[in-house]
Amino acid sequence: MNSAILLISCPDKKGITAQVSAFIYENNGNIEHADQHIDNQTNTFFMRIEWASKNFSIKNENIAKEFSTLAKKFNMHYSLSFSEDVPRVAIFASRDLNCLYDLLLRHREGQLRCKIPLVISNHGNAQRTVKDFDIKFFEFPVTKKNKTRVESKTADLLIKEKIDLIVLARYGQILTRKFLDKFPNRIINIHHSFLPAFVGEDPYGQAYRRGVKIIGATSHYVTEELDAGPIIEQDTARINHRDTIGDLKIKGRDLEKIVLSRAVRWHLERKILVYNNKTVVFD
Amino acid sequence: MNSAILLISCPDKKGITAQVSAFIYENNGNIEHADQHIDNQTNTFFMRIEWASKNFSIKNENIAKEFSTLAKKFNMHYSLSFSEDVPRVAIFASRDLNCLYDLLLRHREGQLRCKIPLVISNHGNAQRTVKDFDIKFFEFPVTKKNKTRVESKTADLLIKEKIDLIVLARYGQILTRKFLDKFPNRIINIHHSFLPAFVGEDPYGQAYRRGVKIIGATSHYVTEELDAGPIIEQDTARINHRDTIGDLKIKGRDLEKIVLSRAVRWHLERKILVYNNKTVVFD
Amino acid sequence: MNSAILLISCPDKKGITAQVSAFIYENNGNIEHADQHIDNQTNTFFMRIEWASKNFSIKNENIAKEFSTLAKKFNMHYSLSFSEDVPRVAIFASRDLNCLYDLLLRHREGQLRCKIPLVISNHGNAQRTVKDFDIKFFEFPVTKKNKTRVESKTADLLIKEKIDLIVLARYGQILTRKFLDKFPNRIINIHHSFLPAFVGEDPYGQAYRRGVKIIGATSHYVTEELDAGPIIEQDTARINHRDTIGDLKIKGRDLEKIVLSRAVRWHLERKILVYNNKTVVFD
Amino acid sequence: MNSAILLISCPDKKGITAQVSAFIYENNGNIEHADQHIDNQTNTFFMRIEWASKNFSIKNENIAKEFSTLAKKFNMHYSLSFSEDVPRVAIFASRDLNCLYDLLLRHREGQLRCKIPLVISNHGNAQRTVKDFDIKFFEFPVTKKNKTRVESKTADLLIKEKIDLIVLARYGQILTRKFLDKFPNRIINIHHSFLPAFVGEDPYGQAYRRGVKIIGATSHYVTEELDAGPIIEQDTARINHRDTIGDLKIKGRDLEKIVLSRAVRWHLERKILVYNNKTVVFD
Repeated sequence: MNSAILLISCPDKKGITAQVSAFIYENNGNIEHADQHIDNQTNTFFMRIEWASKNFSIKNENIAKEFSTLAKKFNMHYSLSFSEDVPRVAIFASRDLNCLYDLLLRHREGQLRCKIPLVISNHGNAQRTVKDFDIKFFEFPVTKKNKTRVESKTADLLIKEKIDLIVLARYGQILTRKFLDKFPNRIINIHHSFLPAFVGEDPYGQAYRRGVKIIGATSHYVTEELDAGPIIEQDTARINHRDTIGDLKIKGRDLEKIVLSRAVRWHLERKILVYNNKTVVFD
Repeated sequence: MNSAILLISCPDKKGITAQVSAFIYENNGNIEHADQHIDNQTNTFFMRIEWASKNFSIKNENIAKEFSTLAKKFNMHYSLSFSEDVPRVAIFASRDLNCLYDLLLRHREGQLRCKIPLVISNHGNAQRTVKDFDIKFFEFPVTKKNKTRVESKTADLLIKEKIDLIVLARYGQILTRKFLDKFPNRIINIHHSFLPAFVGEDPYGQAYRRGVKIIGATSHYVTEELDAGPIIEQDTARINHRDTIGDLKIKGRDLEKIVLSRAVRWHLERKILVYNNKTVVFD
Repeated sequence: MNSAILLISCPDKKGITAQVSAFIYENNGNIEHADQHIDNQTNTFFMRIEWASKNFSIKNENIAKEFSTLAKKFNMHYSLSFSEDVPRVAIFASRDLNCLYDLLLRHREGQLRCKIPLVISNHGNAQRTVKDFDIKFFEFPVTKKNKTRVESKTADLLIKEKIDLIVLARYGQILTRKFLDKFPNRIINIHHSFLPAFVGEDPYGQAYRRGVKIIGATSHYVTEELDAGPIIEQDTARINHRDTIGDLKIKGRDLEKIVLSRAVRWHLERKILVYNNKTVVFD
Repeated sequence: MNSAILLISCPDKKGITAQVSAFIYENNGNIEHADQHIDNQTNTFFMRIEWASKNFSIKNENIAKEFSTLAKKFNMHYSLSFSEDVPRVAIFASRDLNCLYDLLLRHREGQLRCKIPLVISNHGNAQRTVKDFDIKFFEFPVTKKNKTRVESKTADLLIKEKIDLIVLARYGQILTRKFLDKFPNRIINIHHSFLPAFVGEDPYGQAYRRGVKIIGATSHYVTEELDAGPIIEQDTARINHRDTIGDLKIKGRDLEKIVLSRAVRWHLERKILVYNNKTVVFD
């Protein structure tokens, strides 16, 4: 069953919920999900509202225009999407295929409602697996010297393939601001620590040396500052003094997969709103 | 800041959200929280909506009457409450004062927005503590013989004291149907297991003998069937083969306190809707 | 580095630790891990002790004989194994390949130190995947009528293949006592609930209908009584009223994989002792 | 039943377990608990061994001397203690009495095997509560100016009272190196974040602003560098975008109490070994 989804943020004012739901009701829409949140610190109103497309009296292509009066009135930032527009996802991987593999399997199981037209890696070892899933594979090795060129070629490819979301599945390379600016809030990374602890390289080694009793993983939108973008999801697992760095890596692998896949699923289901370098997740 | 809260359940139909929010908006109410849920299996609509009383054009005592047209139209079950009506809570305790003490401390800290006019126990050992908190204490020992009489006396006292919620803080006594029927969905119990596992007596002993690797606690509304009422909240803690029954009890105590206090807080904040022997918790 | 592992249980008495460690030390063994546990309720002593084979003055094939004096003296049950004897594992699967796939991937990653010579399923859908992993695949459909015959054929195959451990990766079929008796404490099952809650069929449906707030998964050794064998590991995940049965299944899949793989790993590393229908896990 | 406890760390060598357990056995001791750990990175051996004092052929006051030959041979750091020597604990508190209260209640329940002769606070508000528990209360307000003097007076008092362990129950004041040096690995602090994230002041505010999805608490031994001492225990709790800073504080309070009380209990039971700014916890 097709549906339309509105994600809204604006200054809080009387009547937003009433008028948005009236807009849907008067056009014969049946609300299937509605969730709202008010941030009292910043006086900001957030809403996610989803209604059945069937019998809705405005055609999909005209909804934005019809809604614009309301949007202007309340000074809204909003995004409108339709469940029948299946997002197109590119996965970036590197040598460690744990998260890549997990996403491909969840996709095959139907957990992730998207198309995955392509995988890009700076190594070749994922090639066979990716092709087994009938997905195009591009090996783009990155060096200091060719980085700008590779990023530019990558961006072109992503635009040509109409990619809506980029997932860094333990990609390892730092992307430049120029690249990031082309895909704002559309690049999800998994960092294998409980951010903001253990930013940067070798977080399991850092965790081991600090002697923490719990490790974590964090999925977040990528921004220019390393590992400092809006956090989407985190989870943790208990360790103890018997665990070697190798054990941390094994325990962490399960966290990484779960935390990354939740973030991707929520993004695909248009459940995430970004503001103030934080996220509202309407789960 | 005072607010009004509506909890609604009814068959799902087009326009409920729109018309409920219009009712609030047209009477100059500012919605502070709104959450809804549709159970697709039973086609039931659930809503919790809270708005600022200030400037609302209908007086509290007239809201129900004004709302009744809408309520009838959609065949709603609903309850209307006002944040300024602070609920009155009676705590029932027995020998183990762990949960009683915890509730009293949280209340003193301001975590639980209620009045606690009285504590009833079938033992006397809580007397001093309860009085230190300036709360009336009644010792009503229960025997097979006097049970009916004690329950009747208890009910009279609760009605006289205008008690809105009864919390069984490890009370231990089974209440009769006659008593329960006077307080439907208004008696919260804590059971020291992960229900439906280990119903009835000595759940820690049962858990120990079964050799589970995780223990739990469950808060639920009390219904006639033992430990089978609508579950409000549960939590779990890891144990291992080194833990004796005594260790289980110590680990369980923290769970009991946390799980019971969450249920009580949510009930006081009118966040719980009961249906089908289950709960919707708008947290 | 090769090592020898002793798992011991016996009535607790003075001197067990001293004499077992002296036996190893006097034969020039270097203890790498030692863990013990005393169950005070039953006065039972449990020990897992692992030492480097290198330089040990008794050959592997003679250790049991040399140790037998001590074993008799303390009336021990014990098992002796050597890390270089890599266990041979058969996986039983059915239509849902989630756990099968996970075990094969973890095995390929090196998380599970074993050989997996064969997979048996009562459906054919795993065939391609299993063969991609270079593992033999047997499709043995089970009906009421052929059950005895299939079990007998299966047992012959397992014995011929020198299988040490059978893993039921959502196998679905109930095994007869006759079959189970051939592999005592050597068949691990994953049940998709927090046992002892929701024994038997459709545990996610049972959980949904009961309205629990947390779901679980349990790995256990299989005994004749359904889902009542010694529990090896459990884990839980939070759900809420928004979750459909379908959501429970998705959330549960991650639990199932993690809980089953931990049990298999611990068994392979000889970390589990069974007694009194419970387990001691020296993790 | 009285017991003796040895905590040992030394370079790993063949025969340590054998000779330590032989020492106990030959002197007619019955080992009740034994746990060991080898850190392969630093080649360090750790052991905790506990045996029944009853019938042990060496008197408590002579054990250290008798054991010294072995200790020298293996170049051991070790501490010997006796369960009948009940540790004496001083709690340092400030305005927020959450953790103080919790420790006092757990102590009264018998969860913490210690004496608590005194509580020191830089505020007076705990006075009544502390006196209700029949514990001496000292109000030592700290200012920049009097800090050295107050610390010196405090140290004298602690030494006079033969305090074995200092617990900072949300004490808030930073202790000087001079003071810390008098009580190495004998001061336990609770920090209300998941360290090393959010060191220093207002960790809940820091967590809120960073937009994390999980908060934590950490108990650790205090060293000179702020919040950087050996971590004893950590735990975490899930939050979401609806939680205000106030909600974080409420959720965090339960974590703080649990995490601090575990650390104190383990310390009192001599289960903690410190090395390399990390802890081995033999739980």
